[in-house]
Amino acid sequence: MKLLVPTPESCNRSLVLDIQSIEGFPVSIHPYNVKENIPEELIDAEFLVTWTNSASNLSDAAKRMKNLKWIQSCAAGPNDVFAAGFDPSIVVCTGSGLHDHTVAEHTLGLLLNAARRFYEMRDFQSQSKWPQHLGGPQPDRPKDNFTTLRDSTVTIWGFGNIAKKLAPWLVSLGATVRGVARKQGVRDGYEVFGEDQLSEVLKTTDALVMILPGDKSTKHALNAERLALLPKHAWVVNVGRGTCIDEEALYNSLSKQEIGGAALDVFDKEPLPSDSKLWEVKNCVISPHAAGGRPQGAETLITENLRRFLAGQNLKNHIKL
Amino acid sequence: MKLLVPTPESCNRSLVLDIQSIEGFPVSIHPYNVKENIPEELIDAEFLVTWTNSASNLSDAAKRMKNLKWIQSCAAGPNDVFAAGFDPSIVVCTGSGLHDHTVAEHTLGLLLNAARRFYEMRDFQSQSKWPQHLGGPQPDRPKDNFTTLRDSTVTIWGFGNIAKKLAPWLVSLGATVRGVARKQGVRDGYEVFGEDQLSEVLKTTDALVMILPGDKSTKHALNAERLALLPKHAWVVNVGRGTCIDEEALYNSLSKQEIGGAALDVFDKEPLPSDSKLWEVKNCVISPHAAGGRPQGAETLITENLRRFLAGQNLKNHIKL
Repeated sequence: MKLLVPTPESCNRSLVLDIQSIEGFPVSIHPYNVKENIPEELIDAEFLVTWTNSASNLSDAAKRMKNLKWIQSCAAGPNDVFAAGFDPSIVVCTGSGLHDHTVAEHTLGLLLNAARRFYEMRDFQSQSKWPQHLGGPQPDRPKDNFTTLRDSTVTIWGFGNIAKKLAPWLVSLGATVRGVARKQGVRDGYEVFGEDQLSEVLKTTDALVMILPGDKSTKHALNAERLALLPKHAWVVNVGRGTCIDEEALYNSLSKQEIGGAALDVFDKEPLPSDSKLWEVKNCVISPHAAGGRPQGAETLITENLRRFLAGQNLKNHIKL
Repeated sequence: MKLLVPTPESCNRSLVLDIQSIEGFPVSIHPYNVKENIPEELIDAEFLVTWTNSASNLSDAAKRMKNLKWIQSCAAGPNDVFAAGFDPSIVVCTGSGLHDHTVAEHTLGLLLNAARRFYEMRDFQSQSKWPQHLGGPQPDRPKDNFTTLRDSTVTIWGFGNIAKKLAPWLVSLGATVRGVARKQGVRDGYEVFGEDQLSEVLKTTDALVMILPGDKSTKHALNAERLALLPKHAWVVNVGRGTCIDEEALYNSLSKQEIGGAALDVFDKEPLPSDSKLWEVKNCVISPHAAGGRPQGAETLITENLRRFLAGQNLKNHIKL
């Protein structure tokens, strides 16, 4: 049996698998270029690890890999695999969990960028100007401004593994963290509100972190009506999917100064079109889908799922094609 | 007996004392404007809390406050009090400890700004350009670049209370933290090297955080020779005092790309002069002395020292005039 894994070079070294850590099974391991068609001598492989594969690589694989039984994607949402036309009998697993640390770190960075006004300092630096109003004695934790995580209230909408990684960092920095998810409850010790309680939660939010997946049910989850519930000083940080925010409504809120600002790593269309009005909003921070993009710990997921597959057990992160 | 404390308005609300929390002593409490001379009816006060006082307020107080026995500054380094000409018999205490959280938070933000290249994203945003090279699949924790705190080695030079606040945050984000201080040893569980071991420590540093006080002994502590020991990708973050870095040497290192970058909150001259060459260095992040400036928990320090003074005990943070 053959397991195909991405070569580091074909994915910008964003995934450098330690091959030794996935050895030990009655399976031979073969690195392949994810941007080219699978070579003839590997086309009979049973197992395929995907990450940043080109669309043509995947659609070709869907046609030619007749023995394929299991695809382990390293993406949290493997839309590329779904779109490629693989036989529905093939088991597909997501890379959910591999991006928790990287996305959480980026999110923390965006929150501090917002609170500490690094983006505005940079605008001044571009003009060789000292932003005096941002330095020296500053109002200490004012109620009507988001200037620090200390004593702030951060709401994380979409309370999965990334949120569970991020939340303790925020707490150690002095924030109160609350979640919002479909199901109300307590997760990892954090209070998670149901989406039906959203309007109450938004009213008392200093920073709203959105980590929602991108599907029909989350489209424009943050719309004009909900934006209007946020306090005037509240920041919106989106590291989930761009479709989850109504960008027109967000632009209106920002330009009317109805919220404090937005730090966005994801957009409805990526790259953000050059004519988007968001580019020029001073208190909108634009990050180019840079939060994740570096799966970490993939070896553990691959070996666990390979073991389960060989043992005839249910796979982790299994998702229906 | 009288205790004079700053009015919130006279210090940009950077210190809003909860007066009730310092009551209970045989002392009357009187708010005063730190930017104006102390009024006649308060000039006989025994105790004075200072914060962002004007030079003229302090030099006037030094002349006119004949009963003054104790000054509690809220600054970590009360150079303003030293310069004002107070009688040497007056007990002066620093505000060391009141800025730990705020400075540590700002430092963490600067480190993430550096690692996640938010400053560069902003430069692109200013031109309505999507910084494609910073998004999408990125090399995962490359050895020759500072792109994340995870698995990075952060050296904190000046391992006092701010470092002790910052270090556990860095560790929870996956960094290895080492200190450098005059005395070698283990502090709060962190390995602290002596300054005589600096050359070895610098060679294996991904990010150097400087939190040194500004005095003769620390002037140009980071000089050309020491900068040359840092790896090519290493970042320098300074939140201590600007005099601790030889700015000319730093500019040379940056412009020759001998280090990865610098994020500076303090400078030799503040505001940074408009003709400084640092303004235009792309990978130099300029923050306008914004890390601290908001003393927190001052009530606890004031009451503890007032209690000690009245009991005839040694005061906390006592420093010789």
